[in-house]
Amino acid sequence: MIYGIACFPSKTIQDMANTFRKRYDSRYELIPPHLTLMEPFELSPGEEEEAVQTMREIGKSIPPYPLHVYKVDSFHPKENKIFLKVDRHQHLQKLHQDLHQSWLGDRILTQKEFTPHITLCQDLRDDEHFDVLDQLKMTMTEETAYVDRMQLFYQLDNEAWTVYETIHLTGKEERSE
Amino acid sequence: MIYGIACFPSKTIQDMANTFRKRYDSRYELIPPHLTLMEPFELSPGEEEEAVQTMREIGKSIPPYPLHVYKVDSFHPKENKIFLKVDRHQHLQKLHQDLHQSWLGDRILTQKEFTPHITLCQDLRDDEHFDVLDQLKMTMTEETAYVDRMQLFYQLDNEAWTVYETIHLTGKEERSE
Repeated sequence: MIYGIACFPSKTIQDMANTFRKRYDSRYELIPPHLTLMEPFELSPGEEEEAVQTMREIGKSIPPYPLHVYKVDSFHPKENKIFLKVDRHQHLQKLHQDLHQSWLGDRILTQKEFTPHITLCQDLRDDEHFDVLDQLKMTMTEETAYVDRMQLFYQLDNEAWTVYETIHLTGKEERSE
Repeated sequence: MIYGIACFPSKTIQDMANTFRKRYDSRYELIPPHLTLMEPFELSPGEEEEAVQTMREIGKSIPPYPLHVYKVDSFHPKENKIFLKVDRHQHLQKLHQDLHQSWLGDRILTQKEFTPHITLCQDLRDDEHFDVLDQLKMTMTEETAYVDRMQLFYQLDNEAWTVYETIHLTGKEERSE
Protein backbone atom coordinates (compact mmCIF):
# COMPACT_ATOMS: atom_id res chain seq x y z
CA MET A 1 0.00 0.00 0.00
CA ILE A 2 1.05 3.61 -0.58
CA TYR A 3 1.63 5.80 2.46
CA GLY A 4 2.47 9.44 3.04
CA ILE A 5 3.38 11.66 6.02
CA ALA A 6 2.06 15.20 6.48
CA CYS A 7 1.24 17.83 9.08
CA PHE A 8 -2.03 19.73 9.18
CA PRO A 9 -1.59 23.47 9.80
CA SER A 10 -4.01 25.31 12.14
CA LYS A 11 -7.70 25.51 11.27
CA THR A 12 -7.21 29.21 10.39
CA ILE A 13 -4.57 28.36 7.79
CA GLN A 14 -6.58 25.40 6.47
CA ASP A 15 -9.67 27.59 6.06
CA MET A 16 -7.67 30.28 4.28
CA ALA A 17 -6.14 27.66 1.96
CA ASN A 18 -9.49 26.06 1.19
CA THR A 19 -11.05 29.28 -0.07
CA PHE A 20 -8.53 29.08 -2.95
CA ARG A 21 -8.22 25.30 -3.22
CA LYS A 22 -11.94 24.85 -3.78
CA ARG A 23 -11.68 26.84 -7.02
CA TYR A 24 -8.16 26.13 -8.20
CA ASP A 25 -6.83 22.85 -6.79
CA SER A 26 -7.57 19.77 -8.90
CA ARG A 27 -6.81 17.61 -5.82
CA TYR A 28 -9.01 19.59 -3.40
CA GLU A 29 -11.27 16.65 -2.61
CA LEU A 30 -8.51 14.14 -1.85
CA ILE A 31 -7.06 15.56 1.41
CA PRO A 32 -7.45 18.64 3.65
CA PRO A 33 -4.80 21.41 3.39
CA HIS A 34 -1.48 19.99 4.56
CA LEU A 35 2.30 20.27 4.56
CA THR A 36 3.89 17.15 3.07
CA LEU A 37 6.75 15.76 5.17
CA MET A 38 7.30 12.60 3.17
CA GLU A 39 6.44 11.91 -0.44
CA PRO A 40 4.41 8.77 -1.23
CA PHE A 41 6.20 5.58 -0.17
CA GLU A 42 5.37 1.91 -0.22
CA LEU A 43 5.00 -0.43 2.75
CA SER A 44 4.32 -4.16 2.68
CA PRO A 45 1.37 -5.54 4.66
CA GLY A 46 2.30 -5.63 8.34
CA GLU A 47 4.99 -2.94 8.13
CA GLU A 48 2.66 -0.11 9.23
CA GLU A 49 3.34 -0.61 12.91
CA GLU A 50 7.09 -0.58 12.39
CA ALA A 51 6.66 2.69 10.46
CA VAL A 52 4.63 4.13 13.36
CA GLN A 53 7.33 3.09 15.85
CA THR A 54 10.00 4.79 13.74
CA MET A 55 7.88 7.94 13.52
CA ARG A 56 7.30 7.88 17.30
CA GLU A 57 11.03 7.64 17.94
CA ILE A 58 11.67 10.58 15.62
CA GLY A 59 8.75 12.56 17.12
CA LYS A 60 10.29 12.21 20.60
CA SER A 61 13.35 14.21 19.54
CA ILE A 62 11.59 17.02 17.61
CA PRO A 63 9.89 19.85 19.53
CA PRO A 64 6.63 21.38 18.26
CA TYR A 65 7.52 23.97 15.61
CA PRO A 66 5.96 27.28 14.56
CA LEU A 67 4.38 26.76 11.16
CA HIS A 68 4.71 30.22 9.64
CA VAL A 69 3.21 30.89 6.21
CA TYR A 70 4.68 34.11 4.90
CA LYS A 71 4.25 34.39 1.14
CA VAL A 72 2.55 32.99 -1.93
CA ASP A 73 4.86 31.43 -4.49
CA SER A 74 4.79 29.06 -7.47
CA PHE A 75 6.83 26.13 -8.78
CA HIS A 76 6.47 27.52 -12.31
CA PRO A 77 8.01 26.77 -14.83
CA LYS A 78 8.60 23.28 -13.37
CA GLU A 79 4.93 22.96 -12.40
CA ASN A 80 1.94 25.30 -12.40
CA LYS A 81 1.51 24.81 -8.69
CA ILE A 82 0.83 27.79 -6.41
CA PHE A 83 1.47 27.41 -2.70
CA LEU A 84 1.77 29.09 0.67
CA LYS A 85 5.48 29.13 1.43
CA VAL A 86 6.28 27.83 4.91
CA ASP A 87 9.26 29.05 6.92
CA ARG A 88 12.02 26.43 6.96
CA HIS A 89 12.18 26.29 10.76
CA GLN A 90 15.06 24.19 12.13
CA HIS A 91 12.69 21.71 13.85
CA LEU A 92 10.69 21.23 10.65
CA GLN A 93 13.89 20.76 8.67
CA LYS A 94 15.19 18.23 11.21
CA LEU A 95 11.87 16.34 11.20
CA HIS A 96 11.99 16.07 7.41
CA GLN A 97 15.63 14.99 7.50
CA ASP A 98 15.14 12.37 10.22
CA LEU A 99 12.18 10.82 8.40
CA HIS A 100 14.15 10.67 5.13
CA GLN A 101 17.27 9.24 6.78
CA SER A 102 15.25 6.44 8.41
CA TRP A 103 14.39 3.23 6.53
CA LEU A 104 11.15 4.92 5.43
CA GLY A 105 13.20 7.19 3.17
CA ASP A 106 14.36 4.14 1.16
CA ARG A 107 10.76 3.36 0.28
CA ILE A 108 9.93 6.68 -1.37
CA LEU A 109 8.67 6.26 -4.92
CA THR A 110 9.87 9.65 -6.29
CA GLN A 111 12.30 11.75 -4.27
CA LYS A 112 11.72 15.52 -4.30
CA GLU A 113 13.70 18.45 -3.00
CA PHE A 114 12.13 19.79 0.22
CA THR A 115 10.35 23.13 -0.16
CA PRO A 116 8.03 23.39 2.85
CA HIS A 117 4.67 24.47 1.42
CA ILE A 118 0.90 24.17 1.51
CA THR A 119 -0.57 23.75 -1.97
CA LEU A 120 -3.32 26.14 -3.01
CA CYS A 121 -3.68 25.67 -6.77
CA GLN A 122 -2.48 23.07 -9.25
CA ASP A 123 -2.99 21.98 -12.84
CA LEU A 124 -3.93 25.50 -14.02
CA ARG A 125 -3.33 26.67 -17.58
CA ASP A 126 -0.44 29.16 -17.93
CA ASP A 127 -2.62 32.29 -18.31
CA GLU A 128 -4.89 31.31 -15.42
CA HIS A 129 -1.87 30.40 -13.31
CA PHE A 130 -0.36 33.90 -13.55
CA ASP A 131 -3.71 35.64 -12.99
CA VAL A 132 -4.37 33.61 -9.86
CA LEU A 133 -0.81 34.01 -8.60
CA ASP A 134 -1.07 37.82 -8.83
CA GLN A 135 -4.44 37.78 -7.11
CA LEU A 136 -3.21 35.55 -4.27
CA LYS A 137 -0.08 37.58 -3.70
CA MET A 138 -2.30 40.58 -2.98
CA THR A 139 -4.82 38.83 -0.70
CA MET A 140 -2.57 36.50 1.31
CA THR A 141 -2.06 37.24 5.02
CA GLU A 142 0.81 35.92 7.16
CA GLU A 143 -0.08 33.36 9.81
CA THR A 144 1.83 31.38 12.41
CA ALA A 145 0.58 28.51 14.55
CA TYR A 146 2.50 25.80 16.38
CA VAL A 147 2.27 22.24 15.06
CA ASP A 148 2.77 19.46 17.60
CA ARG A 149 1.94 16.37 15.56
CA MET A 150 2.21 14.60 12.21
CA GLN A 151 -0.05 12.09 10.50
CA LEU A 152 0.68 8.82 8.71
CA PHE A 153 -1.77 8.42 5.81
CA TYR A 154 -2.54 5.63 3.36
CA GLN A 155 -3.85 6.18 -0.12
CA LEU A 156 -7.16 4.85 -1.37
CA ASP A 157 -7.80 3.70 -4.95
CA ASN A 158 -9.39 7.09 -5.79
CA GLU A 159 -6.09 8.72 -4.66
CA ALA A 160 -7.69 10.22 -1.53
CA TRP A 161 -5.74 9.90 1.73
CA THR A 162 -7.01 8.38 4.99
CA VAL A 163 -5.26 8.98 8.32
CA TYR A 164 -3.83 5.79 9.85
CA GLU A 165 -2.06 7.24 12.88
CA THR A 166 -1.32 10.52 14.69
CA ILE A 167 2.24 10.90 16.03
CA HIS A 168 3.19 13.69 18.44
CA LEU A 169 6.27 15.91 18.43
CA THR A 170 7.39 15.92 22.04
CA GLY A 171 11.07 16.92 21.85
CA LYS A 172 12.34 19.53 24.31
CA GLU A 173 13.72 22.87 23.16
CA GLU A 174 17.45 23.12 23.81
CA ARG A 175 18.08 25.94 26.24
CA SER A 176 20.44 28.64 25.10
CA GLU A 177 22.53 29.46 28.17
CA MET B 1 -15.06 24.45 17.23
CA ILE B 2 -17.12 21.53 15.99
CA TYR B 3 -15.74 18.02 16.51
CA GLY B 4 -16.80 14.53 15.53
CA ILE B 5 -15.67 10.97 16.25
CA ALA B 6 -15.55 8.23 13.63
CA CYS B 7 -13.81 4.98 12.68
CA PHE B 8 -12.38 4.30 9.24
CA PRO B 9 -13.19 0.83 7.91
CA SER B 10 -10.53 -1.19 6.04
CA LYS B 11 -9.13 0.12 2.76
CA THR B 12 -11.12 -2.59 0.92
CA ILE B 13 -14.40 -1.30 2.36
CA GLN B 14 -13.42 2.35 1.80
CA ASP B 15 -12.56 1.63 -1.84
CA MET B 16 -15.85 -0.22 -2.36
CA ALA B 17 -17.78 2.66 -0.76
CA ASN B 18 -15.97 5.30 -2.83
CA THR B 19 -16.95 3.75 -6.16
CA PHE B 20 -20.56 4.67 -5.25
CA ARG B 21 -19.88 7.80 -3.21
CA LYS B 22 -18.03 9.47 -6.06
CA ARG B 23 -21.22 9.45 -8.12
CA TYR B 24 -23.97 9.64 -5.53
CA ASP B 25 -22.73 11.22 -2.29
CA SER B 26 -23.07 15.00 -2.12
CA ARG B 27 -20.53 14.99 0.76
CA TYR B 28 -17.97 12.77 -0.97
CA GLU B 29 -15.22 15.39 -0.90
CA LEU B 30 -15.54 16.27 2.79
CA ILE B 31 -14.28 13.06 4.46
CA PRO B 32 -13.19 9.50 3.48
CA PRO B 33 -15.70 6.66 3.99
CA HIS B 34 -16.32 6.28 7.72
CA LEU B 35 -18.58 4.98 10.48
CA THR B 36 -19.77 7.84 12.70
CA LEU B 37 -19.42 7.11 16.42
CA MET B 38 -20.37 10.54 17.68
CA GLU B 39 -22.46 13.19 15.94
CA PRO B 40 -21.01 16.71 15.68
CA PHE B 41 -20.35 18.27 19.10
CA GLU B 42 -18.87 21.52 20.31
CA LEU B 43 -15.71 22.01 22.37
CA SER B 44 -14.34 25.26 23.72
CA PRO B 45 -10.72 26.20 22.93
CA GLY B 46 -8.41 24.13 25.13
CA GLU B 47 -10.89 21.31 25.73
CA GLU B 48 -9.50 19.10 22.94
CA GLU B 49 -6.92 17.43 25.16
CA GLU B 50 -9.51 16.64 27.83
CA ALA B 51 -11.64 15.09 25.08
CA VAL B 52 -8.66 13.01 23.91
CA GLN B 53 -8.01 11.83 27.50
CA THR B 54 -11.65 10.77 27.86
CA MET B 55 -11.47 8.91 24.55
CA ARG B 56 -8.22 7.19 25.60
CA GLU B 57 -9.82 6.01 28.85
CA ILE B 58 -12.80 4.62 26.93
CA GLY B 59 -10.50 3.07 24.28
CA LYS B 60 -8.63 1.15 26.99
CA SER B 61 -11.78 -0.79 27.90
CA ILE B 62 -13.02 -1.61 24.38
CA PRO B 63 -11.36 -4.42 22.38
CA PRO B 64 -10.88 -4.10 18.60
CA TYR B 65 -14.16 -5.10 16.93
CA PRO B 66 -14.99 -6.85 13.64
CA LEU B 67 -16.54 -4.24 11.36
CA HIS B 68 -18.87 -6.37 9.27
CA VAL B 69 -20.82 -4.75 6.43
CA TYR B 70 -23.58 -7.13 5.40
CA LYS B 71 -26.29 -5.31 3.46
CA VAL B 72 -27.26 -2.13 1.67
CA ASP B 73 -30.13 -0.21 3.24
CA SER B 74 -31.71 3.25 3.22
CA PHE B 75 -33.07 5.72 5.77
CA HIS B 76 -35.96 6.48 3.38
CA PRO B 77 -38.59 7.95 3.98
CA LYS B 78 -36.83 9.88 6.76
CA GLU B 79 -33.89 10.69 4.49
CA ASN B 80 -32.81 9.60 0.99
CA LYS B 81 -29.57 8.26 2.38
CA ILE B 82 -28.26 4.85 1.24
CA PHE B 83 -25.67 3.11 3.38
CA LEU B 84 -23.73 -0.06 4.08
CA LYS B 85 -25.30 -1.53 7.19
CA VAL B 86 -22.73 -2.46 9.83
CA ASP B 87 -23.24 -5.32 12.28
CA ARG B 88 -24.08 -3.97 15.75
CA HIS B 89 -21.21 -5.83 17.44
CA GLN B 90 -21.23 -5.64 21.23
CA HIS B 91 -17.86 -3.83 21.35
CA LEU B 92 -19.01 -1.23 18.82
CA GLN B 93 -22.26 -0.76 20.73
CA LYS B 94 -20.34 -0.35 24.01
CA LEU B 95 -17.91 2.12 22.42
CA HIS B 96 -20.81 4.25 21.16
CA GLN B 97 -22.54 4.04 24.53
CA ASP B 98 -19.43 4.95 26.57
CA LEU B 99 -18.69 7.96 24.37
CA HIS B 100 -22.27 9.20 24.67
CA GLN B 101 -22.44 8.65 28.43
CA SER B 102 -19.23 10.67 28.94
CA TRP B 103 -19.26 14.49 29.18
CA LEU B 104 -18.71 14.57 25.41
CA GLY B 105 -22.26 13.30 24.96
CA ASP B 106 -23.63 16.47 26.60
CA ARG B 107 -22.00 18.58 23.90
CA ILE B 108 -23.73 16.93 20.94
CA LEU B 109 -25.60 19.43 18.79
CA THR B 110 -28.29 17.05 17.45
CA GLN B 111 -28.73 13.61 19.02
CA LYS B 112 -29.49 10.74 16.65
CA GLU B 113 -30.46 7.12 17.19
CA PHE B 114 -27.45 4.84 16.57
CA THR B 115 -27.66 2.82 13.36
CA PRO B 116 -24.08 1.72 12.63
CA HIS B 117 -23.55 2.50 8.93
CA ILE B 118 -21.20 3.76 6.23
CA THR B 119 -22.91 6.28 3.96
CA LEU B 120 -22.78 5.62 0.21
CA CYS B 121 -25.33 8.04 -1.29
CA GLN B 122 -27.20 11.08 -0.03
CA ASP B 123 -29.38 13.94 -1.26
CA LEU B 124 -30.69 11.93 -4.22
CA ARG B 125 -34.11 12.62 -5.75
CA ASP B 126 -36.75 9.96 -4.96
CA ASP B 127 -36.65 8.23 -8.36
CA GLU B 128 -32.85 8.17 -8.49
CA HIS B 129 -32.71 6.99 -4.87
CA PHE B 130 -34.76 3.86 -5.58
CA ASP B 131 -32.90 3.08 -8.82
CA VAL B 132 -29.54 3.33 -7.08
CA LEU B 133 -30.74 1.36 -4.05
CA ASP B 134 -31.86 -1.55 -6.27
CA GLN B 135 -28.57 -1.46 -8.18
CA LEU B 136 -26.47 -1.42 -4.99
CA LYS B 137 -28.41 -4.24 -3.37
CA MET B 138 -27.43 -6.42 -6.34
CA THR B 139 -23.74 -5.47 -6.49
CA MET B 140 -22.84 -5.23 -2.78
CA THR B 141 -20.50 -7.84 -1.31
CA GLU B 142 -20.12 -8.66 2.40
CA GLU B 143 -16.86 -7.67 4.05
CA THR B 144 -15.41 -7.91 7.54
CA ALA B 145 -12.23 -6.32 8.89
CA TYR B 146 -11.17 -5.59 12.44
CA VAL B 147 -11.07 -1.95 13.57
CA ASP B 148 -8.62 -1.12 16.37
CA ARG B 149 -8.83 2.68 16.50
CA MET B 150 -11.06 5.74 16.29
CA GLN B 151 -10.37 9.30 15.16
CA LEU B 152 -11.25 12.65 16.67
CA PHE B 153 -11.95 15.15 13.88
CA TYR B 154 -12.60 18.88 13.74
CA GLN B 155 -14.67 20.58 11.10
CA LEU B 156 -13.33 23.22 8.73
CA ASP B 157 -15.39 26.15 7.43
CA ASN B 158 -16.07 24.27 4.17
CA GLU B 159 -17.57 21.44 6.31
CA ALA B 160 -14.68 19.08 5.55
CA TRP B 161 -13.20 17.13 8.48
CA THR B 162 -9.54 17.05 9.55
CA VAL B 163 -8.17 14.38 11.91
CA TYR B 164 -6.93 15.80 15.21
CA GLU B 165 -6.03 12.58 17.01
CA THR B 166 -6.00 8.79 16.63
CA ILE B 167 -7.12 6.80 19.68
CA HIS B 168 -6.62 3.04 19.95
CA LEU B 169 -9.02 0.37 21.17
CA THR B 170 -6.90 -1.80 23.44
CA GLY B 171 -9.44 -3.54 25.70
CA LYS B 172 -9.03 -7.28 26.30
CA GLU B 173 -11.64 -9.80 25.21
CA GLU B 174 -13.36 -11.39 28.20
CA ARG B 175 -12.67 -15.11 28.22
CA SER B 176 -15.66 -17.40 28.25
CA GLU B 177 -14.74 -20.19 30.67
